[in-house]
Amino acid sequence: MPEGTPRQDLIVGVDLGGTKILSGVFTPQLKRMATAKLSTKAERGYDAVVERIERCVRDAVDEADISLKQVRGVGIGAPGAVDPDTGVVLFAPNLRWKDSPLKRDLEKRLGVPVFAENDGNICTLGVQVVELDGKPQQLVGIFVGTGIGAGIILNGRLHGGFNRTAGEIGHMVLEVGGPKCGCGNRGCFEALASRTAIFRKLSDSIRDGAKSQLSEMLGPGEAIADLKSGDLRKALRKGDKLVEKVIGEAAEYIGIATANIINFLNPEVIVLGGGVMDALQDEMLAIIEATARDYAMTGTADGIRIIASRLGDEAGITGAAVLARQGLKS
Amino acid sequence: MPEGTPRQDLIVGVDLGGTKILSGVFTPQLKRMATAKLSTKAERGYDAVVERIERCVRDAVDEADISLKQVRGVGIGAPGAVDPDTGVVLFAPNLRWKDSPLKRDLEKRLGVPVFAENDGNICTLGVQVVELDGKPQQLVGIFVGTGIGAGIILNGRLHGGFNRTAGEIGHMVLEVGGPKCGCGNRGCFEALASRTAIFRKLSDSIRDGAKSQLSEMLGPGEAIADLKSGDLRKALRKGDKLVEKVIGEAAEYIGIATANIINFLNPEVIVLGGGVMDALQDEMLAIIEATARDYAMTGTADGIRIIASRLGDEAGITGAAVLARQGLKS
Repeated sequence: MPEGTPRQDLIVGVDLGGTKILSGVFTPQLKRMATAKLSTKAERGYDAVVERIERCVRDAVDEADISLKQVRGVGIGAPGAVDPDTGVVLFAPNLRWKDSPLKRDLEKRLGVPVFAENDGNICTLGVQVVELDGKPQQLVGIFVGTGIGAGIILNGRLHGGFNRTAGEIGHMVLEVGGPKCGCGNRGCFEALASRTAIFRKLSDSIRDGAKSQLSEMLGPGEAIADLKSGDLRKALRKGDKLVEKVIGEAAEYIGIATANIINFLNPEVIVLGGGVMDALQDEMLAIIEATARDYAMTGTADGIRIIASRLGDEAGITGAAVLARQGLKS
Repeated sequence: MPEGTPRQDLIVGVDLGGTKILSGVFTPQLKRMATAKLSTKAERGYDAVVERIERCVRDAVDEADISLKQVRGVGIGAPGAVDPDTGVVLFAPNLRWKDSPLKRDLEKRLGVPVFAENDGNICTLGVQVVELDGKPQQLVGIFVGTGIGAGIILNGRLHGGFNRTAGEIGHMVLEVGGPKCGCGNRGCFEALASRTAIFRKLSDSIRDGAKSQLSEMLGPGEAIADLKSGDLRKALRKGDKLVEKVIGEAAEYIGIATANIINFLNPEVIVLGGGVMDALQDEMLAIIEATARDYAMTGTADGIRIIASRLGDEAGITGAAVLARQGLKS
């Protein structure tokens, strides 16, 4: 490329969540140049959110000192069922969207090709391509945050399933009759091991008189649920027994869910990510792996890798950039 | 084909189980001509079982009034992890086999090409090709008998997974801390809804004083566990409340496992088979389907079919014949 000619091969990846929008500008080699962040404001409705996505893309582009004309494509991961062929969000309960033509509406606003996928799939794609050099052909990503989601790669390609909803692992029942889940059922994985479930258990135990350093970390008017996953790590490192117990139990449930996947689908790699894992992987990964290997049938887990992603918060925007790059090539 | 010339395009399918061996001779159009059956006698060791498989194949061939020279290939499903490329049974706990070269040894004895696969996969293949005309490209078969197994078809092909053990759904944990399973863990699907689990619950309840017509069905010296799934159907039709309760609970667990598969893998069709389903599908299928749709996330189960196989006992030999036909073509 002659000096002075602006490059025109950049990609933007967007991670659309229920509470925040992240965007990042990437080189074709998937090196991140700049990022931007906005709150989602889902309550303002579809059009307002699409306008905010556009703004978040333009913010990242500006942050990278480039112009939108230098962007060849935009990838986006959305929290719901997405048809990747049409770019329609079929339904996204957290956003209250149904049959929303996200690709079409964003292309109109940005004048750039847009590619859309489910967010769990996007994160898994990011890990597979960027973190694992595209090697594993069979990969399941489990993302433990406020909720729990997953993405599935089979024969090197994202697996969407019949209704484009594959990977709803947060609602895999692990404990019939267990704690109530937001979905209305009981004993879902998400009701046992998500950030929400962990903080509910901690709050209940402290209210019932259990001692914990967490009580001392609260600011005026703050409740336990206002703390962050990072606060749990701090408490753990100070030897907090209650946090150790609750985090240990959550790790065991994640291990059992991992074993269920090994027994049923038997992928080459299972990768763990999401906010809870990012903050607590040093404390949780060994328990998760030991539990998974204990619950997996003899021979089924041999050689299968159970790892924690190092992409953290950026798995989504990275995977969205990968999606756009793949879409532009084909 | 001129009259008088013997056809040379027949196929034999074998279903090797822990207790019995079934074999069947099929036309290339997968019409069944004759079958044979022998007990497995796994305790006599690998060589003895291979000799019995050979005998069972020769019995079916004789039963069909043909000669082995008219058989182009033999397919076989084995209860364990099988490498379909080499035909080696990697491990089969029920038979106590490990790295057993089943294909090679059977070919030596029969002088005919042999193709081997896992038994759950074979049954699912039989249902997909023969019962569903090869249409669904994403299909999971769940087989509920003494144990519980599954087979997975993705993009029209059997999915073996990294260790060729995919489909070990019997050991998917549904109820952490639940009843003890033969595998050593607790709360496995198999420990909650298999024939073994159903009869254990019935025995325990009757021992604890519950009333049931089953007690009157026993011959001298017989225990509840000696009864058959068909006896449960008879008791149900006579209005037996205990059997109704236990079968209803098992059907709910099968429904929850089905929902877990719909949420996670989201296949087009889930087909239920195996001895328990064959005997009790009229009583169980409606409960299974209602429970599965209740536990599946909104939108994930739309249009997905949950059906019971009509192949019964013959799913295995039929699928094994399909496997051989596919292997001979490629």
